[in-house]
Amino acid sequence: MRKIEITDVSLRDGIQSLLATRVRTEDMLDIVEILDKCGFYSLEVWGGATFDVCLRFLKEDPWERLRKFKERAKNTKLEMLLRGQNLVGYRHYPDDVVEAFVKKAYDNGIEVFRIFDALNDTRNLRKAIETAKKVGAIVKGVLSYTISPVHTVEYYVEIARQLVDMGIDIISIKDQAGILSPKVSYELVKALKSEFPKYPVHLHTQTSANLAEMAQLKGIEAGADMIDTAFYSLSSQTSHPAGEIMIYVLREFGYQVDVDEKLYQKAGDLFVQVRKKYKKFDVLPPYPDVGVLLHQIPGGMITNFISQLREQGMEEKLPDVLEEVVRVREDLGYPPLVTPTSQIVGSQAFLNVLHGERYKVVTKEVKDYVKGLYGRPPAPIKEEVLRKVLGDEEPLYHIRPADLLEPELERIREEAIKAGAKSEEDVLSYALFPLVAKEFFEWREKGEPYVPELEEKEEKRENIPVEFVITVH
Amino acid sequence: MRKIEITDVSLRDGIQSLLATRVRTEDMLDIVEILDKCGFYSLEVWGGATFDVCLRFLKEDPWERLRKFKERAKNTKLEMLLRGQNLVGYRHYPDDVVEAFVKKAYDNGIEVFRIFDALNDTRNLRKAIETAKKVGAIVKGVLSYTISPVHTVEYYVEIARQLVDMGIDIISIKDQAGILSPKVSYELVKALKSEFPKYPVHLHTQTSANLAEMAQLKGIEAGADMIDTAFYSLSSQTSHPAGEIMIYVLREFGYQVDVDEKLYQKAGDLFVQVRKKYKKFDVLPPYPDVGVLLHQIPGGMITNFISQLREQGMEEKLPDVLEEVVRVREDLGYPPLVTPTSQIVGSQAFLNVLHGERYKVVTKEVKDYVKGLYGRPPAPIKEEVLRKVLGDEEPLYHIRPADLLEPELERIREEAIKAGAKSEEDVLSYALFPLVAKEFFEWREKGEPYVPELEEKEEKRENIPVEFVITVH
Ligand SMILES: [Co+2]
Ligand SMILES: [Co+2]
Repeated sequence: MRKIEITDVSLRDGIQSLLATRVRTEDMLDIVEILDKCGFYSLEVWGGATFDVCLRFLKEDPWERLRKFKERAKNTKLEMLLRGQNLVGYRHYPDDVVEAFVKKAYDNGIEVFRIFDALNDTRNLRKAIETAKKVGAIVKGVLSYTISPVHTVEYYVEIARQLVDMGIDIISIKDQAGILSPKVSYELVKALKSEFPKYPVHLHTQTSANLAEMAQLKGIEAGADMIDTAFYSLSSQTSHPAGEIMIYVLREFGYQVDVDEKLYQKAGDLFVQVRKKYKKFDVLPPYPDVGVLLHQIPGGMITNFISQLREQGMEEKLPDVLEEVVRVREDLGYPPLVTPTSQIVGSQAFLNVLHGERYKVVTKEVKDYVKGLYGRPPAPIKEEVLRKVLGDEEPLYHIRPADLLEPELERIREEAIKAGAKSEEDVLSYALFPLVAKEFFEWREKGEPYVPELEEKEEKRENIPVEFVITVH
Repeated sequence: MRKIEITDVSLRDGIQSLLATRVRTEDMLDIVEILDKCGFYSLEVWGGATFDVCLRFLKEDPWERLRKFKERAKNTKLEMLLRGQNLVGYRHYPDDVVEAFVKKAYDNGIEVFRIFDALNDTRNLRKAIETAKKVGAIVKGVLSYTISPVHTVEYYVEIARQLVDMGIDIISIKDQAGILSPKVSYELVKALKSEFPKYPVHLHTQTSANLAEMAQLKGIEAGADMIDTAFYSLSSQTSHPAGEIMIYVLREFGYQVDVDEKLYQKAGDLFVQVRKKYKKFDVLPPYPDVGVLLHQIPGGMITNFISQLREQGMEEKLPDVLEEVVRVREDLGYPPLVTPTSQIVGSQAFLNVLHGERYKVVTKEVKDYVKGLYGRPPAPIKEEVLRKVLGDEEPLYHIRPADLLEPELERIREEAIKAGAKSEEDVLSYALFPLVAKEFFEWREKGEPYVPELEEKEEKRENIPVEFVITVH
């Protein structure tokens, strides 16, 4: 009887996917205690957008949140999602910051690091993986899944090989857009298990297009060992499969799953009330995004285009923009449309349509991308576009992007302390988000109570930094 | 390459599952025209609760709706869901009414009849099947799926055999509660295809617990030929799998599906706006009902219990009532919890808890049920309960329930005409729902405009007759 391990991702990816990450720590502590008793492999409770949103919107210290979670999770490992060299931010940080951040995350309670890079450029993962292994953590090395002519099973096997060589413990497939079909899931897992028989394969699949349950089932038939789920009241829509259901299905098929599904459902029951409290942020339609299967463009990106186009009085241009997104993505070597590449591709497509001429105006981000400052594109950039953007300049794909960055931490520490940092954790918060952290320190100093704005008029989703924002330069 | 046929059920089961059947004909006509061009096997657009709700709440003639649909569906067969001897009502009608109704449904445009009985007592299907076959229609003979010690694969093969002997064209599995797991789906379809290799097997699975997509996929792996889907904006929650997604998945696996998925998505896009118009009825949570897997009680029934218990100031009794539902269902021979057996079991469980003694008070419906007036229970009723309910009376399981009913149509025709019936279709509306039909005829006579109450305060779901209503006798 094969055993399937489950990680619950409700309190990180669930609240990020469904409630714009706006749920406060106090509303999660009882649930952590229940989840801790269920028998999960781990609980993903930190990383992704939670760090930024804690500081920026919730006026919470993300490090303190982690410690509070850790206090309540006595039996189960805590896990975080780490954006490789971007950590939990939106740019590349130098190696000294990466090293210090991973160490402090471990010190404060993270035992499993799920580490990805939007471009699958493993050079952007190396420092984080090395550090996590050095401190004694478990590393899930991630394959960021997307669909394109270059993103074949062979491509992912090659990326997995590089990650295995870096010392990861688990090969982890990450389908952020929810486009991993059951057939590809089967084939991909099969290939990975055959190439790396000693490595557990882990499946993280978003339910955005209702493919996720089928993809997990077929992936497990092919040999996958671990899956990510959420309890029912934070499952589905753009979140993840409901664990209660997957447990039922898998047990029927004869797999061993050592999770107490009744207790898990209790956590879900408890969150039903919490979810009502945050209804202001609960704005997604209850049905699947099927467009993403036709053109690979996630629904959230489209919603954003609509509001951007409306501002310019150009709503009728939406089909043109969507077509242009597909073309720009192709021009740029088929990056997966995930933070930050969704912004890079989206803004440029928008400008190309706005100006009626492709690449007449080019964003700074596209210039940096084409230059190689984000890493190596999955496929070569179209020569014509490369020349138009860089002129005579040569791209720097042979250089690991972080090798171009000077160490920052020593310089920043002084600045951070001036801004109000009281601990090494504060210094790291400042290193990642200087303005936001400074504001938070000042607010903390004043000791004013936090007033959540839960009943206010629906906030524009554009204000949330993890979303797609078009800046016209 | 195996071909999979798809029936779209959006405009019947989709609106019934998600919008309390309240969508008006005028909001569906453009969509029928699009769906007609997609290449479906059939469109399920009539039957179930639509007939009653048209007359009762929408002040629409259901027959006229059907004719309008038929005008727009030039290429695709129209289908209806028929509750066997209950037709589209909530009691057994005599054979003459059944015969006349099926004929008129066919005359007005229905070419495919999907016919079920809550108890799987095929004697309740015989008259409808015979008549549909006689007029030249296609019949999907339904197996009402539920979970119990008696509802085994062998049990369903035996029911299928009886239906095949009655002359059905297609064996149809109906999972109204959304509890058909992928494993059972596989085994059930496998057995049916092996016993009846010449018969297409059709899968109708509700997404209530997010099992439906997996159940369809595994069912098709086992040989199923036909599935039911909805376009994306009427899919999921307690509805059905999104067809756009199933088409994508099935084609990848090499099945032939001759449906234009882009056109299908256009129908879904169009309905996004319509759905907003009916937001008053759009009240289901966006996440799956996982409780149904633990105790077989659909979420809708539980919601109803909560409001009934609240009225009695007995909210804390909910766990007792749910346990009692499980016991009463067992006592009564494990009927599937679907109209009308969900009401029968639910009301009795409620009374048993209310009075603190089991079967101290027994509803008329339970008496009739135990007596055999609804048909033969799936398993024998517990002797002790049978005696307590019937006393010395003997049950009538050897008699087909409708054989106890006198012909009604001739008598009713006169009454109906007095009430305002202008056609044989009107007479049938009156035969099924005399009071509601009379009110409708009177309203039609006056020629007053219909004012939809879309913006009003949320209506209590108990007022909808298709739902579970507890009547304390
Ligand atoms: Co995710
Ligand atoms: Co249905």
